[in-house]
Amino acid sequence: MEKFEVNILGCGSALPTTRHFSSSQVVNIREKLFMVDCGEGAQLQLRRSKLKFTRLNHIFISHLHGDHCFGLMGLISTFGLLGRTASLHIYAHKELERLLAPQLEFFCKGMTYEVVFHPIDPAKAEVIYDDRSVSVSTIPLKHRIPTCGFLFQEKPTPNHIIRDMVDFYRIPVFELNRIKNGEDYITPEGVVVPNHRLTTPSAAPRSYAYCSDTICQTSIIPQIKGVDLLFHEGTFALCDAARAKETFHTTAMQAAQIAVEAQVKQLVIGHFSARYEDESILLKEAQTLFPNTLLAKENLRITL
Amino acid sequence: MEKFEVNILGCGSALPTTRHFSSSQVVNIREKLFMVDCGEGAQLQLRRSKLKFTRLNHIFISHLHGDHCFGLMGLISTFGLLGRTASLHIYAHKELERLLAPQLEFFCKGMTYEVVFHPIDPAKAEVIYDDRSVSVSTIPLKHRIPTCGFLFQEKPTPNHIIRDMVDFYRIPVFELNRIKNGEDYITPEGVVVPNHRLTTPSAAPRSYAYCSDTICQTSIIPQIKGVDLLFHEGTFALCDAARAKETFHTTAMQAAQIAVEAQVKQLVIGHFSARYEDESILLKEAQTLFPNTLLAKENLRITL
Repeated sequence: MEKFEVNILGCGSALPTTRHFSSSQVVNIREKLFMVDCGEGAQLQLRRSKLKFTRLNHIFISHLHGDHCFGLMGLISTFGLLGRTASLHIYAHKELERLLAPQLEFFCKGMTYEVVFHPIDPAKAEVIYDDRSVSVSTIPLKHRIPTCGFLFQEKPTPNHIIRDMVDFYRIPVFELNRIKNGEDYITPEGVVVPNHRLTTPSAAPRSYAYCSDTICQTSIIPQIKGVDLLFHEGTFALCDAARAKETFHTTAMQAAQIAVEAQVKQLVIGHFSARYEDESILLKEAQTLFPNTLLAKENLRITL
Repeated sequence: MEKFEVNILGCGSALPTTRHFSSSQVVNIREKLFMVDCGEGAQLQLRRSKLKFTRLNHIFISHLHGDHCFGLMGLISTFGLLGRTASLHIYAHKELERLLAPQLEFFCKGMTYEVVFHPIDPAKAEVIYDDRSVSVSTIPLKHRIPTCGFLFQEKPTPNHIIRDMVDFYRIPVFELNRIKNGEDYITPEGVVVPNHRLTTPSAAPRSYAYCSDTICQTSIIPQIKGVDLLFHEGTFALCDAARAKETFHTTAMQAAQIAVEAQVKQLVIGHFSARYEDESILLKEAQTLFPNTLLAKENLRITL
């Protein structure tokens, strides 16, 4: 099966700890890398991950809090030092370009590549990236400032040809692509051979939803329904539910409740508050509702 | 003896590696903390160092390359989240304030403390900070952009009173401070008791010089003469001397040569190029000229 992996670079929250880097992930879909959020130290963690820098062309920023974007300047600047030539596309709230402008102008003058900003509207669910293997959509979230999550949806891959049947019907090569894409075959004699006799279905397309930072927001459920993996922030434990509400964050149990209602296959929680030395409490609480939950951690790679 | 320590937070150079953080140090003089440079991840390393955030009120930035200042926004922002109230003073080239302004305005609005920028002229050797225990001066360096090092000079501490002699001469308490500061004592009968009979000298004031980034620059020698500790960049090995010159950096051996000529007591080299997996080659080369050399490394604490 083709690659679809989520690499956690950092899963802490606003306050730095010695246990966690700030928010950043890399989604690897068929060796194309998509970064989601870019907190301080993301480039260091990217280096550690051994993912290829040159495969990363698109960065999605959920919202403009420092712990989700303070790593951008370092990353952009390092790409410049490495002689990168491909454009780097950053999808973020429109303010980001203005905020980085003076530093880009000063630190990155004469860089060998271009940084292209794509303003997104976090209030709307819409496709912001699309290629032949994947589409990325925004998921409107509710935080203290405009914020959205991101839904990565793999495109269907062609069916697999059953070689013996192709030989049996002496199907000419130029017909193969049509058949892979689901069409029936009509013999020169006009006999219709149904597609299901000629192919086996390819793996179902996979999907990944990233939702952070947000208050518990059930309105996201229809959009993330049945995803293979949901990353949802679970900043707080149940005992700090009031604090979660006040700061527009989610408890681990609320994240699990969302996972249950959205019937996702697997849940990973992250964006941990600095107050928990031991995050297993968050895991335990989430698992009471949704057993197939795991804790994010630095350098964790999850295969879909 | 009162505390005078240098804490290495990061000693890599422009390109990130999994071995090093970017440039940052904290000089601890009598529990006042002075940060020198603030590369990406400095706040994380500061947390690791267990130094008290609230003791840090002054940050000195040698020059405006990203690997020496991209950690500032994260640090400033975290101090805000922690409810800091004391002003934070940043000494740097005047451009820095303009570069950070939009981000400070956006990310740090309503912060509980003030960030005060002190523009420095890297071309001049002058005192830029002074209190009763320490003074900090700029050391003009020569790099691709305006750059200076910093010289930390401890103020002399009062002599130690010899208690027995004070009792013997029945010296009144109000005289003690004068005597500690070196004055003789005159008895009511007019007899002069020389200071050296009443006190033992305090430890000699210590000094620390930080010189990075720079081409090998002998003009700094008079200013750093005899310092207790010299941090000098030793970015390159001898085999890359041409590259050092071209990029306005120093080889480890050149750093050692400076240490010899300036008759410093100890040398620590850092700002290592990413190309050396094993930096012991840099240490060996430097030690051929100046045996009392050590390699900087993350979380190293050097006591003066």
